[in-house]
Amino acid sequence: MAKDLRVSYLLDFYGELLTEKQRESLDCYYNQDLSLGEIGENLNITRQGVRDNIKRAEAILFEMEEKLGLAKKFSLINDKLEDIKKHIDIIDQRNMRVYRSNDINESIKVILKDLDKLDKLI
Amino acid sequence: MAKDLRVSYLLDFYGELLTEKQRESLDCYYNQDLSLGEIGENLNITRQGVRDNIKRAEAILFEMEEKLGLAKKFSLINDKLEDIKKHIDIIDQRNMRVYRSNDINESIKVILKDLDKLDKLI
Repeated sequence: MAKDLRVSYLLDFYGELLTEKQRESLDCYYNQDLSLGEIGENLNITRQGVRDNIKRAEAILFEMEEKLGLAKKFSLINDKLEDIKKHIDIIDQRNMRVYRSNDINESIKVILKDLDKLDKLI
Repeated sequence: MAKDLRVSYLLDFYGELLTEKQRESLDCYYNQDLSLGEIGENLNITRQGVRDNIKRAEAILFEMEEKLGLAKKFSLINDKLEDIKKHIDIIDQRNMRVYRSNDINESIKVILKDLDKLDKLI
């Protein structure tokens, strides 16, 4: 059964919308790299049951992404935040080397802390 | 029927997960301020049908927020972005008044543009 690399990523966003068995099946298959047989033993269901769970769960994740588009949105947000971080570093270096403004330095520190918190949120 | 002000906000996040009639009922009731009778006429369903649609749709929105927590997450992201914007303005003013660095000015412009795009995404 082919693995779709997007699934692991989508599981982070929409995993809570799956049943526990669906979520565990996907997690074991995609994140822990267990075989269908091994997952079946762990969850006490047949190999075919695991396969059905995975197929159904994958379909739900893709449907959710089509409707809500969170993974795409968060990826765009991440791109912008990385760009902001890059330019904050430019300002920081310029300030450190040339102007040595404490005010600017203080604001840069706050922004870097905010960016760090955003990184954990997204 | 009491109006819960969070519903309009949650509709932006999870509206796509509702049926068309549920979404339209909520939109008419919360965003366009129509009465249940008026909405029923527009959608060609009974007043009680509208009420049921709204109650069911509200329950779905709250359930989604409990599971995915997007509204809360985006509100936290927004707070951090506003804080970043505030401190970019401080750096901008300080730079304009005192150091007049073109490099810093250029980076500030890029960051402000990024923040503007993020504002539209979130």
